[in-house]
Amino acid sequence: MSKYIFQRIPTHVGVIPDGNRRWAERNGMSKEKGYDYGIAPGFRLYEMCIEQGIQELTLYGFTQDNTKRPVIQRKAFQKACVDAVGTLANRDADLLVVGNTKSPMFPKELLPYTKERVRFGKGLIKVNFLVNYSWQWDLHQAISAINNGQVLKTGRNITDLIGSSQISRVDLMVRWGGRRRLSGFLPVQSIYSDFYVLEALWPDFKDVHFLDALRWYQKQDITLGG
Amino acid sequence: MSKYIFQRIPTHVGVIPDGNRRWAERNGMSKEKGYDYGIAPGFRLYEMCIEQGIQELTLYGFTQDNTKRPVIQRKAFQKACVDAVGTLANRDADLLVVGNTKSPMFPKELLPYTKERVRFGKGLIKVNFLVNYSWQWDLHQAISAINNGQVLKTGRNITDLIGSSQISRVDLMVRWGGRRRLSGFLPVQSIYSDFYVLEALWPDFKDVHFLDALRWYQKQDITLGG
Repeated sequence: MSKYIFQRIPTHVGVIPDGNRRWAERNGMSKEKGYDYGIAPGFRLYEMCIEQGIQELTLYGFTQDNTKRPVIQRKAFQKACVDAVGTLANRDADLLVVGNTKSPMFPKELLPYTKERVRFGKGLIKVNFLVNYSWQWDLHQAISAINNGQVLKTGRNITDLIGSSQISRVDLMVRWGGRRRLSGFLPVQSIYSDFYVLEALWPDFKDVHFLDALRWYQKQDITLGG
Repeated sequence: MSKYIFQRIPTHVGVIPDGNRRWAERNGMSKEKGYDYGIAPGFRLYEMCIEQGIQELTLYGFTQDNTKRPVIQRKAFQKACVDAVGTLANRDADLLVVGNTKSPMFPKELLPYTKERVRFGKGLIKVNFLVNYSWQWDLHQAISAINNGQVLKTGRNITDLIGSSQISRVDLMVRWGGRRRLSGFLPVQSIYSDFYVLEALWPDFKDVHFLDALRWYQKQDITLGG
């Protein structure tokens, strides 16, 4: 990797690993089989982020919308998320799982990671994993907090009260699978994100995809709305 | 236009007309001159939307972040917004201006259009114009509403309380000027939007840009997160 030196590295990368089901179908499998093939790419990406000095990585696990899919698919992506965290426990990351824990769709194995970050190994990178997440849930936590008597102090804003308030602003969003949309991914943190889309499906992840995204990011000027 | 028949037309198109200042510089003018050249493209786009049967069009005027720019630029884009509405008054649109009206940066000439839609002529299309808008302001209106004693009824959500609650979900976002980011444009309504970016700067608008965006939109499957 030493030949890929980037001058400007995003602090926080968000990833939408889309296309597992399409990949499974194209490879003659039933749709739900695709999720299993999404775990290894996630760990390769995690390694590349550490190599590049990226400080925070957020991955879309599954959304509350996704849980309306057929049960066999739902169980497959729930299991893939639990398996991924099990593997991450042997690595070096500060993990936070963010999503609606008060729904039966949330895998109970992941509850220990939802209150505050849990350090694995040397904690080389913050990893946020969106599990049973929804943008409505995320924003609505701010309303609930106010309803429950929390006061928004001067100089603070709604960002401090949302469900994902422990997740920082995303600098670079990378989406696999060709779709050019956010699909509800952290609407507050992705306000100023530069958005890079790859046609390749997520299980077909290659290093060059992410390197291309980082190379492209070099050329973006950052104005934060100014 | 009759030869461009699209099978699937977005109900609501959002537009980020970026690149006025870069265009001015490339054409040997000072930056603030660029905004004047952004009005005519807006009206051509408005006409194309009506021709295609698009029901709602939202345009980024300027943001609260933008007002931190040099005064000569700020005054130029404020004037361009007021002039644009003056011209629209002779057309056929239901206009709503959305933004923070409680700031001195909001052009007072546009206050009459901020409470509810104002019909011009035959009102052939809803036009939303974001003026002195910010995503923080937009979301924070929900917090303010709750603080002021409004109750969020069962089955309703934060979307009903935000500052832009009269603006519907955006199906297709089109951005001129090459940047692949939302820059705070309606974070709630753009959750599921398909996002099309043109390299051309906004004052260089051509019909083919928007037709390409509509042609591309044909091929996107709409899942709304499902």
